[in-house]
Amino acid sequence: MYNFSDISIVLVETQSQGNLGAVARVMKNMGLSQLVLVDCQTEIGDESFRRSCGAEKLLENANQVTGLSNALAAFHLSIGTTSRSVRWFSAVHSPSDLTKNLVSLSSNQKVAIVFGPERTGLTNDHLKYCQWQLKIPTDSQFVSLNLAHAVAIVAYELYQGSSASRSAPKKPLKLAVKSQVEAFTQDLEKCLDEIEFLSKQNPEEVMMTLRQIFSRASLEERDVRILRGILRQWRWYAKMNKKS
Amino acid sequence: MYNFSDISIVLVETQSQGNLGAVARVMKNMGLSQLVLVDCQTEIGDESFRRSCGAEKLLENANQVTGLSNALAAFHLSIGTTSRSVRWFSAVHSPSDLTKNLVSLSSNQKVAIVFGPERTGLTNDHLKYCQWQLKIPTDSQFVSLNLAHAVAIVAYELYQGSSASRSAPKKPLKLAVKSQVEAFTQDLEKCLDEIEFLSKQNPEEVMMTLRQIFSRASLEERDVRILRGILRQWRWYAKMNKKS
Repeated sequence: MYNFSDISIVLVETQSQGNLGAVARVMKNMGLSQLVLVDCQTEIGDESFRRSCGAEKLLENANQVTGLSNALAAFHLSIGTTSRSVRWFSAVHSPSDLTKNLVSLSSNQKVAIVFGPERTGLTNDHLKYCQWQLKIPTDSQFVSLNLAHAVAIVAYELYQGSSASRSAPKKPLKLAVKSQVEAFTQDLEKCLDEIEFLSKQNPEEVMMTLRQIFSRASLEERDVRILRGILRQWRWYAKMNKKS
Repeated sequence: MYNFSDISIVLVETQSQGNLGAVARVMKNMGLSQLVLVDCQTEIGDESFRRSCGAEKLLENANQVTGLSNALAAFHLSIGTTSRSVRWFSAVHSPSDLTKNLVSLSSNQKVAIVFGPERTGLTNDHLKYCQWQLKIPTDSQFVSLNLAHAVAIVAYELYQGSSASRSAPKKPLKLAVKSQVEAFTQDLEKCLDEIEFLSKQNPEEVMMTLRQIFSRASLEERDVRILRGILRQWRWYAKMNKKS
């Protein structure tokens, strides 16, 4: 399977120091490490390091290149991110489509995902070096995404597709066995009968609703112990206070 | 089908002016418009408006509220975003899972997606007001996402879900509003105090467990009516049988 951590994020003519840092941060969040800066219009400065929040190394290791053509020369596949309709691209991928398509690549293919300058995005002159178009779905009335937000969304989808996220362990629930829940439900029914709640209602229907509530709650062993403890205590209280 | 544009983004104790603007911008990109600021630690200032890049109105219309409990009172479903493992949440959703689950809600249900302060994220004290956990998958070595990046990823998934054509859900849930569930929880606490159950245990811990049980149960309006009816009936019974 394709190794998503080999993908490079290529930023073209970036203007904002802060965006450099924000991009580095979210790349590291999503397990990406290869950053390429093409004709960068600012330096990697204090604001960049501040915004990177711990991804300084990724910034320091960024590959600075002159000219997009040079930058992409060694890549097997270059993908241009733009919301515009560009006539010559046959394939327009959403981030999730893209991830599905990349999965089928063999593991040694070098892939670049290219993002344009903040104010204009990628021009046709940039896009001519790209084979695929990547389009992030947005409200058609307000399509201009912040650069780091665009990278965040794409990197998130790539991470979703990577094996790293698939192997994340799930939290095991220690569910109570059915017989414990059943015993609690029967205790509850007795109590409700005693306080004459059931007689005023349709008993079958009320008990069914209560069963459903506790069934949706996915009760754990400890939960059932507490719930039964409440009913036991309530019996004790009722007995102690009973008129003789 | 559920109308995703009705979802509110709830930011708790936000510290950075810039993040307020960045969040507003990406919300507008993804067709969201309801922003709630809880105990906001900064003002909506020049830096917010600059970073919003055209989403000024969304910032101006933000609802400023004191206290998360107040902020969530009128919502049917509150979803807390955290990367921590929180024992009591049985359902931990990824952004894409969440979107799939929200599709099944009926169209008038108010949903809040809650994001914590930049430095700490949501604490357990915040999370106790939430029914579901939302966890954005990240590299386990570097989990702390920028606030606006987190909102960007979630809003992107919601937008994906809204534009995708999906078949109608089987039975839409009519969830109780948070204030109804809260009133029931408080009734319950009073009763447990009266029968001296809480004094024998760690009261905070027991109440937290009970809150979690009922939160996992996704209570509907009718469920809450029945549960409160039981407590009312129990009070009546206790009074009638009290030793004089």
